[in-house]
Amino acid sequence: MTESATDWVFGIHGVRALLSAEDDSVRRLVIAFGRRNPDIEALATMAKARGIRVERMPRPALARITDGGNHQGVAAERRAFVPATERDLATRLPGFDDPLLVILDGIEDPRNLGACLRTAEAAGADAVLVPKRGSAPLSSTVAKTASGALEHLFVVEVGNLARCLKWLRDEGVWLAGGVEGSDGVPYTEVDYRGALGVVVGSEHRGLRRLTRESCDYLVTIPMAGATTSLNVSVALGVLLFEVRRQRDRAG
Amino acid sequence: MTESATDWVFGIHGVRALLSAEDDSVRRLVIAFGRRNPDIEALATMAKARGIRVERMPRPALARITDGGNHQGVAAERRAFVPATERDLATRLPGFDDPLLVILDGIEDPRNLGACLRTAEAAGADAVLVPKRGSAPLSSTVAKTASGALEHLFVVEVGNLARCLKWLRDEGVWLAGGVEGSDGVPYTEVDYRGALGVVVGSEHRGLRRLTRESCDYLVTIPMAGATTSLNVSVALGVLLFEVRRQRDRAG
Repeated sequence: MTESATDWVFGIHGVRALLSAEDDSVRRLVIAFGRRNPDIEALATMAKARGIRVERMPRPALARITDGGNHQGVAAERRAFVPATERDLATRLPGFDDPLLVILDGIEDPRNLGACLRTAEAAGADAVLVPKRGSAPLSSTVAKTASGALEHLFVVEVGNLARCLKWLRDEGVWLAGGVEGSDGVPYTEVDYRGALGVVVGSEHRGLRRLTRESCDYLVTIPMAGATTSLNVSVALGVLLFEVRRQRDRAG
Repeated sequence: MTESATDWVFGIHGVRALLSAEDDSVRRLVIAFGRRNPDIEALATMAKARGIRVERMPRPALARITDGGNHQGVAAERRAFVPATERDLATRLPGFDDPLLVILDGIEDPRNLGACLRTAEAAGADAVLVPKRGSAPLSSTVAKTASGALEHLFVVEVGNLARCLKWLRDEGVWLAGGVEGSDGVPYTEVDYRGALGVVVGSEHRGLRRLTRESCDYLVTIPMAGATTSLNVSVALGVLLFEVRRQRDRAG
């Protein structure tokens, strides 16, 4: 899916999160003809209350719009998600108290990217950095899988990730990169208090060489079975909630 | 997808795991015509070494077989996955040392079910219990998302989940159920050593009432952002690796 001037968020949960986020990017709400669903009617009421146009259309038309996704009878059109810039990050970074940053080094599968964004938001990440090239675009599939998290996150698109990571280190951010196997120390043995960036890599290749070399620590989640790796969003969740656990104990 | 006498595992990673598992369920390996891929040729060599028939077919035929899934040019046909029974569980349970069981209470999305199985296997679960009704069938989509974990797991299909959970408690297994919001204690505050079952529920409804009432503890992963819940496989990962962390420290 390519980026365009508008984008569709679909499914009851995703649309509700979008409407709740109260940003002004939503252009219209579209509902499939047919059986009335109280959840969807509640979304229509929400939309109308915010002055958003509500339209009804046949189910096949909605399926076309949402590219065959599981729309559950409802979709919202909005201006495409516009990520923040590195300059925005430089402006906001000093304002964060012990920031928790998440760096996604080239997640190509849009569902995995969406799941990572949902996980990052749930764990209280202050910002998520995504390279401009080599990542899935921030499409409606990503937004849907993120279940509304995208609207609440500070997502920064980065041109040169290695340079940005170096800059972050110069700013006092420690970088912990997730790796497989025996290349890292067990993730529970690292102290994650203080300014921190957690870096995870693509599903197939892991961290790129320059990214890896930019990290202060390489950490591994020990596998107890025959499976050699976790899904990237699961690995990210395990790492981030260990960070949270340590910070909550310290606080 | 319905269960059938045979089933397809596809994609390089999934097929490699299946062939590595050395079970005798694989009937044939199918490879798409075209550009030679060294990973796929290595799979063909593995298959031949084990006496498994290797066939080549046009890419569209492979796409039909794998139901439009991302086959990457390779698929393996095998006898359908046959889960174990509660009787099998009763036989094996006494042999486990401080067993770690995972109970999936009605995960309907096959990708989520597959991701949960992968996570459970990676965390060293001794068995995974899945209710006979109300769960996604153990299809090739599940097997693919599980990235080979299904072949290494002891998966038990359960008729009456509430009754089975009661039996497990009578056998000395403590049950910790994952819930959202303020209904549970923070998951890091529970001691997970000893015989344990971790129970997670469906994406939309969470634990069913009877399942919930069967648990000794209800535990919550505190959400730090606006997102109200994690993807079920991510939540399961966070819970299981906290169990592992506690057990590894104790050992």
